[in-house]
Amino acid sequence: MSSEVGDLLAGYRGRRTLITGGLGFIGSNLAHRLVELGGRVTIVDALVPDQGGNPYNVHEIADQILIRVADLRSEEVAREAVQGQDVIFNLAGQVSHVDSMENPRQDLESNILPHLSLLEACRRHNRQAVIVYAGTRGQFGRPQYLPVDESHPQRPLDINGVHKMAAEHYHFVYHHAYGLRICSLRLTNTYGPRMLMKHGRHGFISWFLRQAADDETIVVFGDGRQLRDFNYVDDVVGALLLAGASPAAEGQAFNLGSGQPVSVGQIAQMVVEACGRGRWDLVPYPEDRRPIEIGDYYAETNKIAATLGWHPAVGLRQGLLETVRFFAAHRQHYWS
Amino acid sequence: MSSEVGDLLAGYRGRRTLITGGLGFIGSNLAHRLVELGGRVTIVDALVPDQGGNPYNVHEIADQILIRVADLRSEEVAREAVQGQDVIFNLAGQVSHVDSMENPRQDLESNILPHLSLLEACRRHNRQAVIVYAGTRGQFGRPQYLPVDESHPQRPLDINGVHKMAAEHYHFVYHHAYGLRICSLRLTNTYGPRMLMKHGRHGFISWFLRQAADDETIVVFGDGRQLRDFNYVDDVVGALLLAGASPAAEGQAFNLGSGQPVSVGQIAQMVVEACGRGRWDLVPYPEDRRPIEIGDYYAETNKIAATLGWHPAVGLRQGLLETVRFFAAHRQHYWS
Repeated sequence: MSSEVGDLLAGYRGRRTLITGGLGFIGSNLAHRLVELGGRVTIVDALVPDQGGNPYNVHEIADQILIRVADLRSEEVAREAVQGQDVIFNLAGQVSHVDSMENPRQDLESNILPHLSLLEACRRHNRQAVIVYAGTRGQFGRPQYLPVDESHPQRPLDINGVHKMAAEHYHFVYHHAYGLRICSLRLTNTYGPRMLMKHGRHGFISWFLRQAADDETIVVFGDGRQLRDFNYVDDVVGALLLAGASPAAEGQAFNLGSGQPVSVGQIAQMVVEACGRGRWDLVPYPEDRRPIEIGDYYAETNKIAATLGWHPAVGLRQGLLETVRFFAAHRQHYWS
Repeated sequence: MSSEVGDLLAGYRGRRTLITGGLGFIGSNLAHRLVELGGRVTIVDALVPDQGGNPYNVHEIADQILIRVADLRSEEVAREAVQGQDVIFNLAGQVSHVDSMENPRQDLESNILPHLSLLEACRRHNRQAVIVYAGTRGQFGRPQYLPVDESHPQRPLDINGVHKMAAEHYHFVYHHAYGLRICSLRLTNTYGPRMLMKHGRHGFISWFLRQAADDETIVVFGDGRQLRDFNYVDDVVGALLLAGASPAAEGQAFNLGSGQPVSVGQIAQMVVEACGRGRWDLVPYPEDRRPIEIGDYYAETNKIAATLGWHPAVGLRQGLLETVRFFAAHRQHYWS
């Protein structure tokens, strides 16, 4: 870590930070890091069933943070949540592509309405807060070229991608019209401790990890050669923290990525190796997933490297080992 | 009109067509043309106050069409509306940029939910219908280059633009995932008979026409040099009909435009001349409109010309005269 980055992170000491969706995978890891940095952390989370929120994710720091189980769609909840905050990490949402196609209205309730409510609350009650939005590679759809940079056209293939894109645009509209200090990070496949492990609809890597840990056979769709870009959650947390502390991020969108894409087959093999059990096999692509399959994806991360000094630090083998170790110790709180 | 275009339009004879928002400005003009062509027309319109729906718009053809005042957000309304239709002209929505900033939630209710509901109904009950969506130049935001072509980045400056863009993407998602036969036309400033004239929030040209007709002073914001692109409503209706009849339109988006951009000052002068009364003057840009002002805009229309054979036929002077004549005869049904 450079001294400049260290100084930025030290700035979180005593700062009031809000994490929406803070009981979920990435939000809870961010909360741990912010507590370490001496930040004052408030979490708002609606604990929507099956969406990744898990109170166990913050049990070790529960007495050092403020946790509000509430729904940001409520104007009053949003107002109370944003008042007085210095930095808002806006991570609330549902992340399943398949669920968004089965129930687009529910995806809208989770990925559109809370953001509109939060931004309206900031417009009225807190225009000074820095807001970091968690966008997604799903906004881009099927890549037209690789690696995908920030100006790549956004043509999402599923409802989740449409809503994540629209909510990112809300942030930019409120930035231009009202001066809200927003930025957006487009996350790629993120993995690590505190992932949702109950079902496989939040991305395949958690499901691979569970199947291997249970000594079952990982099922890889297609020929397993589709390339994906993985970030260990600590690196994503680092990017969020830098974005929330750097004036240069204001009004900008940044792609996250690893610089080292791997195939789905390779990751299955690496998961098996990290777990020391399980195996993997290929099956044809399921019909309902084929239209929303994006092909190869990996991102260019020059912009966030140049602007915020961010570089992913945790390699895939190391990250998988950390993840396996975490779930071996906490399995009962994640498996059911 | 080429014979090919004539053949396409003749194909509407006996076809079952649905117009969402059909009591509004463009929808009602489309309904008149479809009745002329021998189409079987159903209109669904929620008649949301102040949004342009006006039963008088279809009073001359009311006994030849089916009119349902109902809200497409209802699953049952949407199902009944789409069943058995051959072509669906999906024009429902609210069009005020300023209103969308004052009440983003209401804009969402009008520009997001009805489309999701309609597409879900088509997915379940009518995958064969051709669906023509009315997008808007507002999806593009401030032009990065001129003229604006179909691949210009979409960075809307207001909530209305975000929602119109998201709803267009819904259509593409349903096309790719379920084979729905959709296309989108991005309309620019459209004017003509049956416009909403009660207030000035649906675009300035209707308000200019009203002020001049009332022998008042047209107020032009800024220096009056911003370029805009106008289409007479009959030309837009022609584009919608071609899009709904041409297999080549499927899965495509097309920009509409005139090929002859004019400045806001010029249009004010032309409105005064067409009305034979009124005058115009410059005032500074109002603060609440400045952030959502897009600068110059005009579109490239090569794609729709090449693919659908569409060319606008009505020049601005002629179109304004027709419009003035219409409102002189029907003023009492539009002024209040």
